[in-house]
Amino acid sequence: MDIATIGGLILGFVLIVWGILQGSNIGAFIDVGSVIIVIGGAFAALFVSYPLPQVLTFGSVGSKSFQNAPFEVGKIIEKVIELANVARREGLLALEEAVSEIKDDFLQKGVMLIVDGTDPELVKNILETEVANIEDRHGTNKGMFENMGSLFPAFGMVGTLIGLVAMLQNLSDPSAIGPAMAVALLTTFYGSLFANLIFNPIATKLDYKSKNEMLVKQVMIEGLLSIQAGENPRIIEEKLKAFLPPKMRKSIGTQEAEENNG
Amino acid sequence: MDIATIGGLILGFVLIVWGILQGSNIGAFIDVGSVIIVIGGAFAALFVSYPLPQVLTFGSVGSKSFQNAPFEVGKIIEKVIELANVARREGLLALEEAVSEIKDDFLQKGVMLIVDGTDPELVKNILETEVANIEDRHGTNKGMFENMGSLFPAFGMVGTLIGLVAMLQNLSDPSAIGPAMAVALLTTFYGSLFANLIFNPIATKLDYKSKNEMLVKQVMIEGLLSIQAGENPRIIEEKLKAFLPPKMRKSIGTQEAEENNG
Amino acid sequence: MDIATIGGLILGFVLIVWGILQGSNIGAFIDVGSVIIVIGGAFAALFVSYPLPQVLTFGSVGSKSFQNAPFEVGKIIEKVIELANVARREGLLALEEAVSEIKDDFLQKGVMLIVDGTDPELVKNILETEVANIEDRHGTNKGMFENMGSLFPAFGMVGTLIGLVAMLQNLSDPSAIGPAMAVALLTTFYGSLFANLIFNPIATKLDYKSKNEMLVKQVMIEGLLSIQAGENPRIIEEKLKAFLPPKMRKSIGTQEAEENNG
Amino acid sequence: MDIATIGGLILGFVLIVWGILQGSNIGAFIDVGSVIIVIGGAFAALFVSYPLPQVLTFGSVGSKSFQNAPFEVGKIIEKVIELANVARREGLLALEEAVSEIKDDFLQKGVMLIVDGTDPELVKNILETEVANIEDRHGTNKGMFENMGSLFPAFGMVGTLIGLVAMLQNLSDPSAIGPAMAVALLTTFYGSLFANLIFNPIATKLDYKSKNEMLVKQVMIEGLLSIQAGENPRIIEEKLKAFLPPKMRKSIGTQEAEENNG
Amino acid sequence: MDIATIGGLILGFVLIVWGILQGSNIGAFIDVGSVIIVIGGAFAALFVSYPLPQVLTFGSVGSKSFQNAPFEVGKIIEKVIELANVARREGLLALEEAVSEIKDDFLQKGVMLIVDGTDPELVKNILETEVANIEDRHGTNKGMFENMGSLFPAFGMVGTLIGLVAMLQNLSDPSAIGPAMAVALLTTFYGSLFANLIFNPIATKLDYKSKNEMLVKQVMIEGLLSIQAGENPRIIEEKLKAFLPPKMRKSIGTQEAEENNG
Repeated sequence: MDIATIGGLILGFVLIVWGILQGSNIGAFIDVGSVIIVIGGAFAALFVSYPLPQVLTFGSVGSKSFQNAPFEVGKIIEKVIELANVARREGLLALEEAVSEIKDDFLQKGVMLIVDGTDPELVKNILETEVANIEDRHGTNKGMFENMGSLFPAFGMVGTLIGLVAMLQNLSDPSAIGPAMAVALLTTFYGSLFANLIFNPIATKLDYKSKNEMLVKQVMIEGLLSIQAGENPRIIEEKLKAFLPPKMRKSIGTQEAEENNG
Repeated sequence: MDIATIGGLILGFVLIVWGILQGSNIGAFIDVGSVIIVIGGAFAALFVSYPLPQVLTFGSVGSKSFQNAPFEVGKIIEKVIELANVARREGLLALEEAVSEIKDDFLQKGVMLIVDGTDPELVKNILETEVANIEDRHGTNKGMFENMGSLFPAFGMVGTLIGLVAMLQNLSDPSAIGPAMAVALLTTFYGSLFANLIFNPIATKLDYKSKNEMLVKQVMIEGLLSIQAGENPRIIEEKLKAFLPPKMRKSIGTQEAEENNG
Repeated sequence: MDIATIGGLILGFVLIVWGILQGSNIGAFIDVGSVIIVIGGAFAALFVSYPLPQVLTFGSVGSKSFQNAPFEVGKIIEKVIELANVARREGLLALEEAVSEIKDDFLQKGVMLIVDGTDPELVKNILETEVANIEDRHGTNKGMFENMGSLFPAFGMVGTLIGLVAMLQNLSDPSAIGPAMAVALLTTFYGSLFANLIFNPIATKLDYKSKNEMLVKQVMIEGLLSIQAGENPRIIEEKLKAFLPPKMRKSIGTQEAEENNG
Repeated sequence: MDIATIGGLILGFVLIVWGILQGSNIGAFIDVGSVIIVIGGAFAALFVSYPLPQVLTFGSVGSKSFQNAPFEVGKIIEKVIELANVARREGLLALEEAVSEIKDDFLQKGVMLIVDGTDPELVKNILETEVANIEDRHGTNKGMFENMGSLFPAFGMVGTLIGLVAMLQNLSDPSAIGPAMAVALLTTFYGSLFANLIFNPIATKLDYKSKNEMLVKQVMIEGLLSIQAGENPRIIEEKLKAFLPPKMRKSIGTQEAEENNG
Repeated sequence: MDIATIGGLILGFVLIVWGILQGSNIGAFIDVGSVIIVIGGAFAALFVSYPLPQVLTFGSVGSKSFQNAPFEVGKIIEKVIELANVARREGLLALEEAVSEIKDDFLQKGVMLIVDGTDPELVKNILETEVANIEDRHGTNKGMFENMGSLFPAFGMVGTLIGLVAMLQNLSDPSAIGPAMAVALLTTFYGSLFANLIFNPIATKLDYKSKNEMLVKQVMIEGLLSIQAGENPRIIEEKLKAFLPPKMRKSIGTQEAEENNG
């Protein structure tokens, strides 16, 4: 569970509610019609923007921003070094037994390719193709949220224009102007709030998590190719540690690598 | 038929109409002059932006966002593996018979080049040149819709300025100000709505479909070059599956690869 | 003559005039002082932005968006294949006679380099350097129009601010407020209209034409190097057709390649 | 201490306070609720945007913009040349003694790799991987401040919308409208001021410092590889000076290289 | 002297003053407090954005946009060909005498490297490293002016918000509202005018001049490496002319290459 995502959303909404209560009441800021126009309009545009199967991933993609990364890079480096030691001592075929203990599918697949005696150039080609395609798919997924981050303010403005036009065509009752304009502004308020508290930040977090996953995959590829090339585990460790920030390097190789990279 | 595009457009317009009916009537939001200024102005600028033959493709390019992708990548991988098996068993020349069954022109052309005994380097050069040029043309096509996505709000604002200037020069009748301003805002409303519900989303969908097509083409090139190099069909399968998301890989090689990648 | 550019500009201005006449009169939208501030201010900033010799090309660069491309890629491919056939049959030196019939300077220069027996690596180096520098100059030229596309709205806003400040400092006559504000808005109107109907679209068209020219040049380089390498004209045709969209390929090699790519 | 950062912040706030005092009083510009909405909202969105461990670095990352660069590139070049001379005269192993005097961890690590007789290709690989990963982490860090630079104005606008809606729903007391609107505008004021005086400038400074650090690291790598290759110290000096602006080159090799690059 | 920069600035300010005099007086547009907030605020933020030594170059960097390029590319090509002829006739060492006549430091350094018999690969490495670092420094310099181009409007808006809040808190005297709002708008006016007439255009001109200088340097490197390789001066001329637009090529090699590229 990524507590920052949930905590941030709760904190944000509590603050906004608190801010509203300073000078008004919550009821004045809830208008079902306005909510429908902004959310409905933005999702309608999302359907035009992406094919149905992609749109249907919206929820599961978004939920990734609430999950912690399954593997942190420090642990993966330790695992790769462990595999390198096995391969060094007992040969590449000995890795077959270790495969079942590997929890990451990508690393497991890479080890299988090595055990099968696949040509190193082909191992590299397959693993890098896979990473490039994962990165592309992540980019598309993030793109949905970035799109929502600009569609929400846009439909907020569309809703406000609808409210303003309706109000301006009927100015006979001056006392109705204020409340009508207040309602008209609500869609802009919703659009701006949802874009800046939910969609844009989630797009940023998906990007962060994707980059972290790409780093982990890069470490795996570098490690796997080094293992296949029969390099010294100490040298592999040196190579892989270069991917880490200095203060995370010390714990590698010990059992204390417990810090959460979240 | 890409039901998301049509469904999204219908949903969007129904919601907007519903929103209008909450506080006003449809008649108040229809002003033929405003429609003409926004749509006419944006298309006039489109003519200045692109040569006539390119502008004339506007409709057919846009219609692509209503169509499903003709081939999904999973099926193409199966087809390539099938061809690889034929080539493996019966030699490259045996592919000639298979050519007529291939529905995709690009794959067909690639197989023909192999059957003709074209130099591998030249096959690669020709196919990659073609893909790069398709990508460029897609980029230009998408660019037209992105341009419309910024021209519509721009001419919406131009229309509103025309309305405001006309209104401000004749403030003698206070009761006319509201309705005049309402009409002035309509062009901004049209510009914003059309840009955000139609043109920008269609540009996004064209981009999505183009990337998907490029992926399919990349798989074909990789597969064709592997077939020509006489690689083992199992290895080709492994290579091509790396282009797919994990959950789509399982169905390859079976007859159950029915999921729509649309 | 690029009729789309002229037609689009005429259509755009006719529509705007028509829109103005719906609720006002042309006189109300013409204010010489406002025109001078917007156009003068934007050109003043253009002088600060570019050296004089570059600014002096503004007219001739802009006029390119009114001209058709001198050569379309289909014709160039035919010409290159024709040259390839001559070279194949009669040797590279026989191209010397063909040089005078080539209307494009770049292609002519390339053929001359081949006839002179220049080293293939050097031919490639010279032609690619030239293309890269043409592309850079096109980018700068287009940049002038993009700059104007943002300077016009900017000086439109500066003009409106001047008008608003003047108006606000003298509110004693309420009946003068409306007309004064109308005049203040005119500069924003001019800035927005000229940017979106003239400068941004012309920048887009220059970009389109530049890309098209780069494609033609790329085809020429590919063709020239193939001719010099003594490749089979049929293979050269195959290579160069990969630059074309499928439906334009059929006419190559026949005399019916008349479609206007302009 | 980077006095420009502190000086700029102090100067900026003093100027703003002075500006306020010209026509109003400070009390009118302080509204605790508004401060909480803007700062709280932006930080809430920051939590949604980044995982907790990354958000927790916010303070230490920001504080880097208040520190001078620990090493300036001129001094590093002198140090590398000194090491090159040692290696030239006494052999690569003699560098071991010099290691303890090197204050920069990266340079120290590089020298250790050389002393250990690591393969030059591997030294390059390790050092470049490390630099690429430092650059990525710097990019993420800078991204947090850039995000804040757009979140602050966004929540400023959200706050203003809350204030406007509250005000518009209760227009019965005309004398309250002005002050209510003044308070509503305060959040926009805070958002705009903090973004443009604090967050965007700090993001720019972090970017500047990161580029400077990357330059230093590039010089170190170039120098280390040249030392390992046994190149002449005079040639190494020539190579490394090419990284410097001309006027900084003269002092290299003398004891007068005191100018502060901070 | 780059007369376009000075002429553009004078023309721009004269036009703005003329525009102001159409409906108001200069005094109404001068408010010392507003000037201080906008200029002071933007420079304060510039200090936060860059280290002191970089900020201190602001004036000298800006003054470059008032100077003509010291060397035009046509003359440099002639000089390089002259050197090539000397080297061809009298050997590389004969270039030593020519060094003192070369006014450009970079070209001089390159010739010295050749005369010293430096390895061609190293000459290329040193010269390209220097050019890459000059380009980076130019980018940072231009970045300062681009930053100012966005900081000025930002602090213009901050100033306007200060004025509006002050005005709204004291609406008791209706006749004071107009003038107070006029003054509040002045900061937006200053910010917008200075950004669009001074800072953004100067950033564009610095970029133009930097690209031109990079072109000159590229020509020098290409020429120097060709001279060192002992290539035929006629071939070098052919190679270098490819960097020029066609109409500038004819004058090369004659004494009439007088056109000012500045």
